[in-house]
Amino acid sequence: MLSKVFSSTQKAYLAGFLDGDGSIYVRAKPNSTYKFGFQIAPYVVLFQSAKDRINFEKICSLIDLGHLRERKDGILEYIISRTGNILGFLNLIEPYLILKKSQSVLAKEIIKAKSEVKNKEDFAALMKKVDSFRELNYSKKRKMRKLTP
Amino acid sequence: MLSKVFSSTQKAYLAGFLDGDGSIYVRAKPNSTYKFGFQIAPYVVLFQSAKDRINFEKICSLIDLGHLRERKDGILEYIISRTGNILGFLNLIEPYLILKKSQSVLAKEIIKAKSEVKNKEDFAALMKKVDSFRELNYSKKRKMRKLTP
Repeated sequence: MLSKVFSSTQKAYLAGFLDGDGSIYVRAKPNSTYKFGFQIAPYVVLFQSAKDRINFEKICSLIDLGHLRERKDGILEYIISRTGNILGFLNLIEPYLILKKSQSVLAKEIIKAKSEVKNKEDFAALMKKVDSFRELNYSKKRKMRKLTP
Repeated sequence: MLSKVFSSTQKAYLAGFLDGDGSIYVRAKPNSTYKFGFQIAPYVVLFQSAKDRINFEKICSLIDLGHLRERKDGILEYIISRTGNILGFLNLIEPYLILKKSQSVLAKEIIKAKSEVKNKEDFAALMKKVDSFRELNYSKKRKMRKLTP
């Protein structure tokens, strides 16, 4: 799956970069050609302003597991979308993640659960995990405010 | 200056984080109490959304060379502003920087030049360096467009 060998400092650098300006998320896209009506699509994305394209491309080639696109607003996105590549990348960097470690763990769980779906119940359980992922990405502020006086 | 020992993966993580969502910059603030009319103030800043405060604070305590503030728009800034701390931090992470290596090199040059200013000419040379720093941070997009067809 991963042909390259990454040094521990390369893995840590990429973990820091993802924690700083990256995202791990899972989309449930309505799609009638899928058995349960949805395509479950996980993503790992690194962002950077297009003004840093030359150097950002160095980071992308170091990873070499996704594709680069430029959004209309001038932001570059390096998108890892193949399941095998996401697993490979997360396994590399997860030990060094600080901000997005729980997202990494849950994304891997979802990929596993997705590969094991046999019936409607399994799929409903998978969709629950996808929902809890969204919660992880968007509601931390509220949770934190409850915890701190 | 730096009492802590950082592992190489910690340094690489922090370099990745700064490359992803950080900034190195130098301000020339008009200030009549300074001999040449300006205070030259370098900064290293890490940014993060306040929803990640708890984990971001872990990163800040790991660094322990600056202070944390929350902007009105909900962005947290971890600001390193003491010259000695900036030098210490940049020396730690510079070997691992990819996007902001030239900013790091130039910031250190400016700090050195600033400490050696003796006359108007020295100060003019220092201000030139500060200007070229601004160029480094803001004009890469234009340069890149000239280079790529």
